[in-house]
Amino acid sequence: MSRTLYDLAGEDPACRFSPFCWRSRMALAHKGLDVDAVPWRFTEAERLGFSGQNKVPVLVDGERVVADSWAIACWLEDRYPGRPSLFEGEGGRAVSRFVNAWADGVLHPHVARMVVADIPPLLAPADRAYFRESREKRFGMPLERVSADRHDRAAAFRRELHPLRATLAAQPWLGGEAPAYADYIVFGAFQWARVASAFELLEDGDPVAEWRERMLDLHDGLARATPARAAQRQEAARA
Amino acid sequence: MSRTLYDLAGEDPACRFSPFCWRSRMALAHKGLDVDAVPWRFTEAERLGFSGQNKVPVLVDGERVVADSWAIACWLEDRYPGRPSLFEGEGGRAVSRFVNAWADGVLHPHVARMVVADIPPLLAPADRAYFRESREKRFGMPLERVSADRHDRAAAFRRELHPLRATLAAQPWLGGEAPAYADYIVFGAFQWARVASAFELLEDGDPVAEWRERMLDLHDGLARATPARAAQRQEAARA
Repeated sequence: MSRTLYDLAGEDPACRFSPFCWRSRMALAHKGLDVDAVPWRFTEAERLGFSGQNKVPVLVDGERVVADSWAIACWLEDRYPGRPSLFEGEGGRAVSRFVNAWADGVLHPHVARMVVADIPPLLAPADRAYFRESREKRFGMPLERVSADRHDRAAAFRRELHPLRATLAAQPWLGGEAPAYADYIVFGAFQWARVASAFELLEDGDPVAEWRERMLDLHDGLARATPARAAQRQEAARA
Repeated sequence: MSRTLYDLAGEDPACRFSPFCWRSRMALAHKGLDVDAVPWRFTEAERLGFSGQNKVPVLVDGERVVADSWAIACWLEDRYPGRPSLFEGEGGRAVSRFVNAWADGVLHPHVARMVVADIPPLLAPADRAYFRESREKRFGMPLERVSADRHDRAAAFRRELHPLRATLAAQPWLGGEAPAYADYIVFGAFQWARVASAFELLEDGDPVAEWRERMLDLHDGLARATPARAAQRQEAARA
Protein backbone atom coordinates (compact mmCIF):
# COMPACT_ATOMS: atom_id res chain seq x y z
CA MET A 1 0.00 0.00 0.00
CA SER A 2 1.38 3.41 -0.87
CA ARG A 3 1.61 6.07 1.79
CA THR A 4 2.40 9.72 1.04
CA LEU A 5 2.92 12.70 3.32
CA TYR A 6 2.84 16.19 1.83
CA ASP A 7 5.64 17.93 3.69
CA LEU A 8 6.62 21.61 3.55
CA ALA A 9 9.97 22.11 1.78
CA GLY A 10 12.34 24.95 0.99
CA GLU A 11 13.86 25.60 -2.41
CA ASP A 12 16.14 22.63 -1.68
CA PRO A 13 13.67 19.73 -1.51
CA ALA A 14 15.74 18.24 1.32
CA CYS A 15 15.03 21.29 3.53
CA ARG A 16 12.02 20.27 5.66
CA PHE A 17 11.21 22.68 8.45
CA SER A 18 7.48 22.56 9.26
CA PRO A 19 6.92 21.78 12.95
CA PHE A 20 3.53 20.24 12.17
CA CYS A 21 4.93 18.00 9.43
CA TRP A 22 7.69 16.85 11.79
CA ARG A 23 5.05 15.76 14.30
CA SER A 24 3.59 13.50 11.59
CA ARG A 25 6.92 12.23 10.30
CA MET A 26 8.01 11.21 13.78
CA ALA A 27 4.60 9.62 14.44
CA LEU A 28 4.85 7.56 11.25
CA ALA A 29 8.37 6.44 12.19
CA HIS A 30 7.18 5.59 15.72
CA LYS A 31 4.58 3.30 14.15
CA GLY A 32 7.25 1.80 11.90
CA LEU A 33 5.33 2.84 8.79
CA ASP A 34 7.07 3.67 5.53
CA VAL A 35 6.05 6.92 3.92
CA ASP A 36 7.03 8.93 0.91
CA ALA A 37 7.40 12.46 2.35
CA VAL A 38 6.99 14.51 -0.80
CA PRO A 39 8.08 18.16 -0.91
CA TRP A 40 5.31 20.74 -1.04
CA ARG A 41 5.62 24.49 -1.14
CA PHE A 42 3.49 27.30 0.27
CA THR A 43 2.31 28.44 -3.16
CA GLU A 44 1.14 24.98 -4.23
CA ALA A 45 -2.25 25.05 -2.52
CA GLU A 46 -3.91 23.58 -5.60
CA ARG A 47 -1.88 20.37 -5.17
CA LEU A 48 -3.76 19.81 -1.89
CA GLY A 49 -7.18 20.39 -3.45
CA PHE A 50 -8.05 16.70 -3.07
CA SER A 51 -7.78 17.11 0.73
CA GLY A 52 -10.47 19.81 0.91
CA GLN A 53 -8.11 22.30 2.53
CA ASN A 54 -4.79 23.99 1.82
CA LYS A 55 -2.31 23.19 4.60
CA VAL A 56 0.27 20.50 5.25
CA PRO A 57 0.75 17.93 6.62
CA VAL A 58 -1.63 15.85 4.53
CA LEU A 59 -1.32 12.09 4.76
CA VAL A 60 -2.58 9.86 1.98
CA ASP A 61 -2.74 6.39 3.48
CA GLY A 62 -4.02 4.04 0.78
CA GLU A 63 -7.52 5.31 0.04
CA ARG A 64 -7.67 7.57 3.05
CA VAL A 65 -6.79 11.29 3.06
CA VAL A 66 -6.08 12.88 6.45
CA ALA A 67 -5.15 16.54 6.94
CA ASP A 68 -3.92 18.18 10.18
CA SER A 69 -1.17 16.78 12.38
CA TRP A 70 -3.46 15.92 15.31
CA ALA A 71 -5.93 14.11 13.06
CA ILE A 72 -3.02 12.23 11.46
CA ALA A 73 -1.76 11.07 14.87
CA CYS A 74 -5.25 9.86 15.82
CA TRP A 75 -5.67 8.14 12.46
CA LEU A 76 -2.37 6.30 12.84
CA GLU A 77 -3.17 5.25 16.40
CA ASP A 78 -6.60 3.94 15.48
CA ARG A 79 -5.69 2.39 12.14
CA TYR A 80 -2.55 0.61 13.40
CA PRO A 81 -3.40 -0.48 16.95
CA GLY A 82 -0.95 -3.41 16.85
CA ARG A 83 2.05 -1.17 16.33
CA PRO A 84 3.83 0.86 19.03
CA SER A 85 1.34 3.22 20.60
CA LEU A 86 1.58 7.00 20.22
CA PHE A 87 -0.57 7.63 23.28
CA GLU A 88 -0.40 4.52 25.51
CA GLY A 89 -4.08 4.63 26.29
CA GLU A 90 -7.02 7.00 25.96
CA GLY A 91 -5.82 9.10 28.89
CA GLY A 92 -2.57 9.70 27.05
CA ARG A 93 -4.44 10.78 23.95
CA ALA A 94 -6.68 13.17 25.89
CA VAL A 95 -3.92 14.83 27.87
CA SER A 96 -1.61 15.01 24.83
CA ARG A 97 -4.16 17.43 23.39
CA PHE A 98 -3.16 19.81 26.16
CA VAL A 99 0.50 19.45 25.19
CA ASN A 100 -0.55 20.10 21.58
CA ALA A 101 -2.34 23.29 22.63
CA TRP A 102 0.66 24.38 24.73
CA ALA A 103 3.04 23.85 21.84
CA ASP A 104 0.78 25.71 19.40
CA GLY A 105 -0.06 28.56 21.74
CA VAL A 106 3.08 29.04 23.82
CA LEU A 107 6.11 27.49 22.07
CA HIS A 108 5.32 28.28 18.47
CA PRO A 109 4.72 32.03 18.82
CA HIS A 110 8.11 32.35 20.53
CA VAL A 111 9.96 30.22 17.99
CA ALA A 112 8.24 31.96 15.08
CA ARG A 113 9.48 35.37 16.17
CA MET A 114 13.01 34.11 16.74
CA VAL A 115 13.44 32.34 13.39
CA VAL A 116 11.05 33.97 10.92
CA ALA A 117 13.65 36.33 9.42
CA ASP A 118 15.86 33.36 8.54
CA ILE A 119 13.19 31.58 6.52
CA PRO A 120 12.85 33.58 3.25
CA PRO A 121 16.35 32.71 1.95
CA LEU A 122 15.48 29.02 2.31
CA LEU A 123 12.38 29.23 0.15
CA ALA A 124 11.75 28.76 -3.55
CA PRO A 125 11.39 32.16 -5.28
CA ALA A 126 7.58 32.13 -5.54
CA ASP A 127 7.26 31.11 -1.87
CA ARG A 128 9.69 33.78 -0.78
CA ALA A 129 7.42 36.63 -1.86
CA TYR A 130 4.31 34.96 -0.47
CA PHE A 131 5.96 34.20 2.84
CA ARG A 132 7.38 37.66 3.39
CA GLU A 133 4.15 39.40 2.51
CA SER A 134 1.85 37.15 4.56
CA ARG A 135 4.13 37.07 7.62
CA GLU A 136 4.89 40.78 7.56
CA LYS A 137 1.16 41.40 7.45
CA ARG A 138 0.66 39.04 10.40
CA PHE A 139 3.41 40.62 12.51
CA GLY A 140 2.78 44.16 11.28
CA MET A 141 6.46 44.83 10.62
CA PRO A 142 9.43 43.70 8.48
CA LEU A 143 10.56 40.17 9.38
CA GLU A 144 14.02 41.43 10.26
CA ARG A 145 12.45 43.63 12.94
CA VAL A 146 10.36 40.72 14.26
CA SER A 147 13.49 38.68 14.91
CA ALA A 148 15.72 41.58 15.99
CA ASP A 149 15.07 41.07 19.72
CA ARG A 150 15.64 37.35 19.66
CA HIS A 151 18.50 37.31 22.13
CA ASP A 152 16.20 38.82 24.76
CA ARG A 153 13.31 36.66 23.63
CA ALA A 154 15.36 33.49 23.95
CA ALA A 155 15.68 34.07 27.69
CA ALA A 156 11.89 34.41 28.03
CA PHE A 157 11.42 31.35 25.82
CA ARG A 158 13.71 29.28 28.00
CA ARG A 159 11.70 30.29 31.06
CA GLU A 160 8.50 29.21 29.30
CA LEU A 161 10.03 25.75 28.95
CA HIS A 162 9.82 25.26 32.71
CA PRO A 163 6.99 22.66 32.56
CA LEU A 164 8.92 20.66 29.98
CA ARG A 165 12.14 20.85 32.00
CA ALA A 166 10.39 19.88 35.24
CA THR A 167 8.76 16.89 33.55
CA LEU A 168 12.09 15.77 32.09
CA ALA A 169 13.61 15.98 35.57
CA ALA A 170 11.12 13.30 36.66
CA GLN A 171 11.13 11.02 33.61
CA PRO A 172 13.23 10.65 30.43
CA TRP A 173 10.44 11.50 27.97
CA LEU A 174 7.12 13.33 28.04
CA GLY A 175 5.71 9.91 27.25
CA GLY A 176 7.32 8.49 30.41
CA GLU A 177 9.85 5.68 30.01
CA ALA A 178 9.60 5.82 26.22
CA PRO A 179 8.95 8.60 23.71
CA ALA A 180 5.34 9.18 22.69
CA TYR A 181 3.38 11.58 20.55
CA ALA A 182 3.62 14.26 23.26
CA ASP A 183 7.39 14.28 22.66
CA TYR A 184 6.92 14.62 18.91
CA ILE A 185 4.53 17.55 19.36
CA VAL A 186 7.09 19.53 21.33
CA PHE A 187 10.06 18.36 19.30
CA GLY A 188 8.48 19.75 16.12
CA ALA A 189 9.08 23.27 17.41
CA PHE A 190 12.78 22.59 18.04
CA GLN A 191 13.29 20.85 14.71
CA TRP A 192 11.66 23.81 12.96
CA ALA A 193 14.18 26.15 14.58
CA ARG A 194 17.09 23.77 13.97
CA VAL A 195 16.45 23.41 10.24
CA ALA A 196 15.38 26.98 9.53
CA SER A 197 17.82 29.00 11.59
CA ALA A 198 21.38 28.98 12.90
CA PHE A 199 20.15 30.79 16.02
CA GLU A 200 20.48 28.54 19.08
CA LEU A 201 17.41 28.54 21.33
CA LEU A 202 18.85 26.65 24.28
CA GLU A 203 21.83 26.93 26.58
CA ASP A 204 24.42 24.22 26.99
CA GLY A 205 23.54 21.88 29.82
CA ASP A 206 19.82 22.55 29.65
CA PRO A 207 18.05 19.19 30.16
CA VAL A 208 15.76 20.23 27.32
CA ALA A 209 18.80 20.35 25.01
CA GLU A 210 19.77 16.86 26.15
CA TRP A 211 16.26 15.62 25.44
CA ARG A 212 16.43 17.28 22.00
CA GLU A 213 19.61 15.34 21.24
CA ARG A 214 17.88 12.10 22.20
CA MET A 215 14.94 13.04 19.98
CA LEU A 216 17.33 13.58 17.07
CA ASP A 217 18.70 10.08 17.61
CA LEU A 218 15.29 8.37 17.52
CA HIS A 219 14.18 6.18 14.64
CA ASP A 220 17.68 5.79 13.22
CA GLY A 221 18.34 9.50 13.39
CA LEU A 222 15.38 10.45 11.19
CA ALA A 223 15.26 14.09 12.31
CA ARG A 224 19.04 14.47 12.44
CA ALA A 225 19.25 13.40 8.79
CA THR A 226 17.76 16.76 7.83
CA PRO A 227 20.75 19.08 8.23
CA ALA A 228 20.75 21.85 10.81
CA ARG A 229 21.01 25.35 9.38
CA ALA A 230 23.94 26.05 11.68
CA ALA A 231 25.91 23.13 10.21
CA GLN A 232 25.12 24.24 6.68
CA ARG A 233 26.37 27.73 7.41
CA GLN A 234 29.60 26.39 8.84
CA GLU A 235 30.10 24.26 5.75
CA ALA A 236 29.45 27.23 3.47
CA ALA A 237 31.95 29.29 5.44
CA ARG A 238 34.61 26.60 5.08
CA ALA A 239 34.02 26.28 1.30
CA MET B 1 -9.71 0.39 56.98
CA SER B 2 -9.21 3.94 58.13
CA ARG B 3 -8.02 6.55 55.67
CA THR B 4 -6.90 10.03 56.71
CA LEU B 5 -5.80 13.04 54.66
CA TYR B 6 -4.00 15.88 56.40
CA ASP B 7 -5.50 18.93 54.74
CA LEU B 8 -4.50 22.57 55.17
CA ALA B 9 -7.17 24.56 57.03
CA GLY B 10 -7.80 28.14 58.06
CA GLU B 11 -8.86 29.21 61.54
CA ASP B 12 -12.31 27.85 60.65
CA PRO B 13 -11.63 24.14 60.21
CA ALA B 14 -14.12 24.11 57.32
CA CYS B 15 -11.93 26.53 55.35
CA ARG B 16 -9.80 24.30 53.09
CA PHE B 17 -7.85 26.16 50.44
CA SER B 18 -4.66 24.25 49.57
CA PRO B 19 -4.49 23.58 45.82
CA PHE B 20 -2.36 20.48 46.41
CA CYS B 21 -4.75 19.05 49.00
CA TRP B 22 -7.65 19.62 46.61
CA ARG B 23 -5.88 17.54 43.99
CA SER B 24 -5.81 14.68 46.48
CA ARG B 25 -9.35 15.14 47.76
CA MET B 26 -10.74 15.09 44.21
CA ALA B 27 -8.58 12.05 43.38
CA LEU B 28 -9.89 10.17 46.43
CA ALA B 29 -13.48 11.03 45.47
CA HIS B 30 -12.82 9.95 41.88
CA LYS B 31 -11.76 6.57 43.21
CA GLY B 32 -14.87 6.46 45.39
CA LEU B 33 -12.73 6.17 48.54
CA ASP B 34 -13.88 7.51 51.88
CA VAL B 35 -11.41 9.67 53.71
CA ASP B 36 -11.29 11.69 56.87
CA ALA B 37 -9.82 15.01 55.72
CA VAL B 38 -8.49 16.33 59.00
CA PRO B 39 -7.59 20.00 59.39
CA TRP B 40 -3.89 20.82 59.63
CA ARG B 41 -2.28 24.20 60.04
CA PHE B 42 1.00 25.66 58.79
CA THR B 43 2.52 25.78 62.27
CA GLU B 44 1.78 22.14 63.03
CA ALA B 45 4.78 20.62 61.26
CA GLU B 46 5.42 18.29 64.20
CA ARG B 47 2.04 16.60 63.58
CA LEU B 48 3.45 15.41 60.23
CA GLY B 49 6.67 14.07 61.76
CA PHE B 50 5.55 10.48 61.09
CA SER B 51 5.63 11.23 57.35
CA GLY B 52 9.29 12.23 57.33
CA GLN B 53 8.56 15.68 55.91
CA ASN B 54 6.53 18.77 56.81
CA LYS B 55 4.04 19.52 54.04
CA VAL B 56 0.46 18.56 53.25
CA PRO B 57 -1.22 16.68 51.71
CA VAL B 58 -0.26 13.54 53.59
CA LEU B 59 -2.41 10.48 53.09
CA VAL B 60 -2.51 7.71 55.67
CA ASP B 61 -4.09 4.75 53.93
CA GLY B 62 -4.21 1.91 56.41
CA GLU B 63 -0.57 1.18 57.18
CA ARG B 64 0.76 3.26 54.34
CA VAL B 65 1.87 6.91 54.62
CA VAL B 66 2.13 8.89 51.37
CA ALA B 67 3.18 12.54 51.17
CA ASP B 68 3.01 14.80 48.09
CA SER B 69 -0.02 15.14 45.84
CA TRP B 70 1.58 13.47 42.81
CA ALA B 71 2.75 10.51 44.88
CA ILE B 72 -0.74 10.23 46.39
CA ALA B 73 -2.36 10.12 42.93
CA CYS B 74 0.06 7.40 41.83
CA TRP B 75 -0.49 5.46 45.03
CA LEU B 76 -4.27 5.56 44.59
CA GLU B 77 -4.05 4.53 40.94
CA ASP B 78 -1.75 1.59 41.70
CA ARG B 79 -3.39 0.47 44.95
CA TYR B 80 -6.97 0.62 43.62
CA PRO B 81 -6.72 -0.50 39.98
CA GLY B 82 -10.30 -1.79 39.91
CA ARG B 83 -11.79 1.62 40.67
CA PRO B 84 -12.25 4.46 38.14
CA SER B 85 -8.87 5.35 36.71
CA LEU B 86 -7.20 8.70 37.37
CA PHE B 87 -4.95 8.39 34.32
CA GLU B 88 -6.62 5.96 31.87
CA GLY B 89 -3.37 4.26 31.04
CA GLU B 90 0.34 4.79 31.47
CA GLY B 91 0.41 7.40 28.72
CA GLY B 92 -2.12 9.43 30.66
CA ARG B 93 -0.01 9.17 33.80
CA ALA B 94 3.17 10.26 31.99
CA VAL B 95 1.63 13.23 30.20
CA SER B 96 -0.31 14.32 33.30
CA ARG B 97 3.09 15.03 34.84
CA PHE B 98 3.49 17.77 32.29
CA VAL B 99 0.12 19.23 33.30
CA ASN B 100 1.29 18.99 36.93
CA ALA B 101 4.45 20.92 36.07
CA TRP B 102 2.46 23.51 34.12
CA ALA B 103 0.07 24.04 37.03
CA ASP B 104 2.92 24.33 39.55
CA GLY B 105 5.14 26.54 37.40
CA VAL B 106 2.69 28.69 35.43
CA LEU B 107 -0.72 28.75 37.12
CA HIS B 108 0.29 28.77 40.76
CA PRO B 109 2.69 31.73 40.66
CA HIS B 110 -0.03 33.84 39.05
CA VAL B 111 -2.75 32.74 41.47
CA ALA B 112 -0.45 33.14 44.46
CA ARG B 113 0.23 36.78 43.66
CA MET B 114 -3.45 37.52 43.08
CA VAL B 115 -4.79 35.99 46.28
CA VAL B 116 -1.96 36.00 48.82
CA ALA B 117 -3.04 39.21 50.54
CA ASP B 118 -6.46 37.71 51.24
CA ILE B 119 -5.10 34.69 53.07
CA PRO B 120 -3.86 35.99 56.47
CA PRO B 121 -7.35 36.91 57.78
CA LEU B 122 -8.44 33.31 57.13
CA LEU B 123 -5.70 31.79 59.24
CA ALA B 124 -5.47 30.79 62.86
CA PRO B 125 -3.48 33.40 64.83
CA ALA B 126 -0.21 31.43 65.01
CA ASP B 127 -0.38 30.67 61.29
CA ARG B 128 -1.11 34.28 60.44
CA ALA B 129 2.28 35.52 61.67
CA TYR B 130 4.14 32.60 60.12
CA PHE B 131 2.40 33.03 56.78
CA ARG B 132 2.92 36.76 56.51
CA GLU B 133 6.57 36.55 57.45
CA SER B 134 7.47 33.62 55.20
CA ARG B 135 5.53 34.93 52.19
CA GLU B 136 6.74 38.51 52.56
CA LYS B 137 10.27 37.14 52.61
CA ARG B 138 9.56 35.08 49.50
CA PHE B 139 8.03 37.99 47.57
CA GLY B 140 10.34 40.62 49.05
CA MET B 141 7.48 43.01 49.83
CA PRO B 142 4.31 43.37 51.93
CA LEU B 143 1.57 40.98 50.80
CA GLU B 144 -0.76 43.86 50.07
CA ARG B 145 1.74 45.16 47.53
CA VAL B 146 2.12 41.70 45.97
CA SER B 147 -1.60 41.57 45.23
CA ALA B 148 -2.03 45.26 44.41
CA ASP B 149 -1.67 44.77 40.64
CA ARG B 150 -4.04 41.85 40.45
CA HIS B 151 -6.48 43.44 38.05
CA ASP B 152 -3.67 43.77 35.48
CA ARG B 153 -2.27 40.38 36.39
CA ALA B 154 -5.64 38.70 35.89
CA ALA B 155 -5.55 39.65 32.20
CA ALA B 156 -2.10 38.06 31.81
CA PHE B 157 -3.28 35.03 33.78
CA ARG B 158 -6.27 34.56 31.49
CA ARG B 159 -3.97 34.64 28.47
CA GLU B 160 -1.79 31.96 30.09
CA LEU B 161 -4.87 29.73 30.22
CA HIS B 162 -4.86 29.48 26.43
CA PRO B 163 -3.72 25.82 26.32
CA LEU B 164 -6.45 24.86 28.79
CA ARG B 165 -9.08 26.81 26.86
CA ALA B 166 -7.99 25.33 23.52
CA THR B 167 -8.14 21.82 24.95
CA LEU B 168 -11.61 22.42 26.39
CA ALA B 169 -12.75 23.62 22.96
CA ALA B 170 -11.93 20.14 21.63
CA GLN B 171 -13.16 17.96 24.50
CA PRO B 172 -15.20 18.47 27.68
CA TRP B 173 -12.42 17.61 30.15
CA LEU B 174 -8.63 17.52 30.14
CA GLY B 175 -9.15 13.79 30.65
CA GLY B 176 -11.21 13.63 27.43
CA GLU B 177 -14.81 12.45 27.67
CA ALA B 178 -14.61 12.16 31.46
CA PRO B 179 -12.69 14.04 34.16
CA ALA B 180 -9.30 12.65 35.14
CA TYR B 181 -6.42 13.58 37.41
CA ALA B 182 -5.23 16.20 34.90
CA ASP B 183 -8.48 18.07 35.59
CA TYR B 184 -7.98 17.85 39.35
CA ILE B 185 -4.43 19.21 39.05
CA VAL B 186 -5.60 22.35 37.29
CA PHE B 187 -8.80 22.69 39.29
CA GLY B 188 -6.80 22.84 42.53
CA ALA B 189 -5.53 26.28 41.51
CA PHE B 190 -9.04 27.59 40.92
CA GLN B 191 -10.42 26.12 44.12
CA TRP B 192 -7.55 27.71 46.07
CA ALA B 193 -8.52 31.11 44.66
CA ARG B 194 -12.24 30.48 45.15
CA VAL B 195 -11.95 29.58 48.83
CA ALA B 196 -9.23 32.06 49.78
CA SER B 197 -10.30 35.18 47.93
CA ALA B 198 -13.34 37.04 46.67
CA PHE B 199 -11.30 38.22 43.69
CA GLU B 200 -12.66 36.67 40.48
CA LEU B 201 -9.96 35.29 38.17
CA LEU B 202 -12.12 34.60 35.12
CA GLU B 203 -14.48 36.51 32.91
CA ASP B 204 -18.09 35.52 32.34
CA GLY B 205 -18.48 33.27 29.35
CA ASP B 206 -14.91 31.96 29.48
CA PRO B 207 -15.08 28.23 28.69
CA VAL B 208 -12.63 27.76 31.56
CA ALA B 209 -15.24 29.22 33.92
CA GLU B 210 -17.82 26.80 32.54
CA TRP B 211 -15.42 23.89 33.10
CA ARG B 212 -14.79 25.14 36.65
CA GLU B 213 -18.54 25.02 37.32
CA ARG B 214 -18.64 21.43 36.10
CA MET B 215 -15.67 20.61 38.32
CA LEU B 216 -17.53 22.07 41.30
CA ASP B 217 -20.47 19.77 40.54
CA LEU B 218 -18.38 16.58 40.44
CA HIS B 219 -18.58 13.92 43.13
CA ASP B 220 -21.84 15.24 44.57
CA GLY B 221 -20.52 18.79 44.69
CA LEU B 222 -17.54 17.94 46.90
CA ALA B 223 -15.58 21.10 46.05
CA ARG B 224 -18.66 23.34 46.02
CA ALA B 225 -19.46 22.26 49.59
CA THR B 226 -16.48 24.33 50.76
CA PRO B 227 -17.89 27.86 50.58
CA ALA B 228 -16.45 30.45 48.23
CA ARG B 229 -14.92 33.47 49.92
CA ALA B 230 -17.06 35.73 47.73
CA ALA B 231 -20.27 34.10 49.02
CA GLN B 232 -19.09 34.39 52.62
CA ARG B 233 -18.40 38.09 52.17
CA GLN B 234 -21.85 38.65 50.71
CA GLU B 235 -23.41 36.83 53.64
CA ALA B 236 -21.41 38.88 56.13
CA ALA B 237 -22.50 42.06 54.36
CA ARG B 238 -26.17 41.07 54.60
CA ALA B 239 -25.96 40.16 58.29
